[in-house]
Amino acid sequence: MITQRPVETFLDELASGAPTPGGGSAAAIMGAMGAALISMVCNVTIGKKGHEAVEPEMKSVRDESEKLRVRLTAMVAEDVAAFDGLMAAYRLPKATEEEKSRRAMAIQTSLLAATETPMACARACAQVVALSKRAAEKGYAGVISDAGVGVLSANTALRSAGLNVYINVPSLRDRAYAEAATAELEQLLDTCARESELVFEMVRSRLG
Amino acid sequence: MITQRPVETFLDELASGAPTPGGGSAAAIMGAMGAALISMVCNVTIGKKGHEAVEPEMKSVRDESEKLRVRLTAMVAEDVAAFDGLMAAYRLPKATEEEKSRRAMAIQTSLLAATETPMACARACAQVVALSKRAAEKGYAGVISDAGVGVLSANTALRSAGLNVYINVPSLRDRAYAEAATAELEQLLDTCARESELVFEMVRSRLG
Repeated sequence: MITQRPVETFLDELASGAPTPGGGSAAAIMGAMGAALISMVCNVTIGKKGHEAVEPEMKSVRDESEKLRVRLTAMVAEDVAAFDGLMAAYRLPKATEEEKSRRAMAIQTSLLAATETPMACARACAQVVALSKRAAEKGYAGVISDAGVGVLSANTALRSAGLNVYINVPSLRDRAYAEAATAELEQLLDTCARESELVFEMVRSRLG
Repeated sequence: MITQRPVETFLDELASGAPTPGGGSAAAIMGAMGAALISMVCNVTIGKKGHEAVEPEMKSVRDESEKLRVRLTAMVAEDVAAFDGLMAAYRLPKATEEEKSRRAMAIQTSLLAATETPMACARACAQVVALSKRAAEKGYAGVISDAGVGVLSANTALRSAGLNVYINVPSLRDRAYAEAATAELEQLLDTCARESELVFEMVRSRLG
């Protein structure tokens, strides 16, 4: 599993001319780092003197961000699999009519997977952005900058995953799905662009 | 070394209530991922048919982004060391006047290191943003979304490193240094906010 490799090895593979891992995997890692930082803010706040009143909420935010972190971490490998699947479909033989038709179907199936994977990443990142607001508002001030880095990571992961949706939707034959995915993505991008800047400003003002 | 640990272990440590690694290390990893993705775009373009004319420039961009990747990867551990050093200084004894004065000096030395580390990260990320423009303009269209993820990562890493500068400068006694660092940071933030959105738009338009 790619996320069991050392950070440096992952970075070497990202930098190489091999097609995977690429931006989709980087997006999933940024999303997972965002979720991890929100968990960190909650974990530091839980049990901190003077923060007893927010403890139940910090626990609930942490439980949600940890679930999202697990999902986003799994998406690093899922993105590699989706992209490799798409490349394999494009390499299928196309000498006869039957081969051509089988290849076209395989490409469509793989394109759907290669669109759904970054869509799932985008949705999870939007949830991390929403959680970051609660962490930034109520978390211990000593780690509030970590909530700021968390929200920026999550929003950038969302925009990055979005690029991988935009690459694939033009080739999808299922136009109803393509349009619905694009519309959903654009709503997530709009909402989170606004939300993440508000959270970032809140963090900046709490830093003094 | 922290970057020799598996990606999943790094994420577990980031999420934990331990003070390090935190947002500063996450910023350095985002910067290193940004540099890695710029290298990837260049590596895929080098040797690609029809891209012979841009090959010398792609090699030069790749050599620079690889140097920045090495530096940013090293900053993951440097950020941990700087933060741990600062925490250690705050824990020094302060019973006598001599102890108080020695502690205050140690805190100032550590604060300088804990400001210079994210400043170095911010500078390196600004260079990655500048390189991303050349990669996005001239890189092979099939991996252009990776240049988009790269520029977003690098700019977000810069903003994240910036938060770690803002935390520390108010406590610095060397006001001339503090003001110079803040002014330099703000210039980097302004320039790269504009540049990175231009590169992102260029990528979006090349995606069709």
